[in-house]
Amino acid sequence: MELSFKFNSDGLIPAIVQDAISRRVLMLAWMNAAAIEKTFATGFMHYWSRSRQQSWFKGETSGHTQRVMSWAVDCDRDTLLFEVEQKGGACHTGYESCFFQTLHHDGTPAGVAEQRVFDPEKTYQK
Amino acid sequence: MELSFKFNSDGLIPAIVQDAISRRVLMLAWMNAAAIEKTFATGFMHYWSRSRQQSWFKGETSGHTQRVMSWAVDCDRDTLLFEVEQKGGACHTGYESCFFQTLHHDGTPAGVAEQRVFDPEKTYQK
Repeated sequence: MELSFKFNSDGLIPAIVQDAISRRVLMLAWMNAAAIEKTFATGFMHYWSRSRQQSWFKGETSGHTQRVMSWAVDCDRDTLLFEVEQKGGACHTGYESCFFQTLHHDGTPAGVAEQRVFDPEKTYQK
Repeated sequence: MELSFKFNSDGLIPAIVQDAISRRVLMLAWMNAAAIEKTFATGFMHYWSRSRQQSWFKGETSGHTQRVMSWAVDCDRDTLLFEVEQKGGACHTGYESCFFQTLHHDGTPAGVAEQRVFDPEKTYQK
């Protein structure tokens, strides 16, 4: 496997995740080499959780997995881009995308113009 | 201006930049509070260059500016997403997007399937 990506001083690289069909950007998360290996091995997105300091199989609890359709690295080799098939919603708050909060031109929050695609209380109640 | 974004320990926040029409992801770059302010004030993307340690008006040399069409913050408030109108190409290598290098499923580089949209030698020759 090609692993000549540029990781930061914490051994992490940011991964932009985009819906392969709609091309909506769903989230940004961080991967270490092991997460990349697991993603490659399984075909499903794995990350490194900086807050929990552990590896993270996206959808393990919620079922909202992300199947990799294609991926690319940027010109600096320090950012990854994944196009995925998203089950359910990407955001733990219940929205399709983590970027549901649009902003006015001056940076103040605009109203959220979309509905949740799942109920986080039911999804994460266990 | 709303600036309650979560900046990292270097005072930076990653910004994902996407073409507003095609929704292609063009690049990821980093912003500090001043870059956000300049972007807000001018309507054109400004960044903080980590390699050059200076602020950076995208397109200042090349003319390949990015006019902000809309923007959003993610659920953690630690990543920004901008939809832009891109003049020319986003990548300093001449490609439309910095993510021109697609990868095989095993992480090895696939062939680049697109043409450059500008000649970087001519664009940056001054």
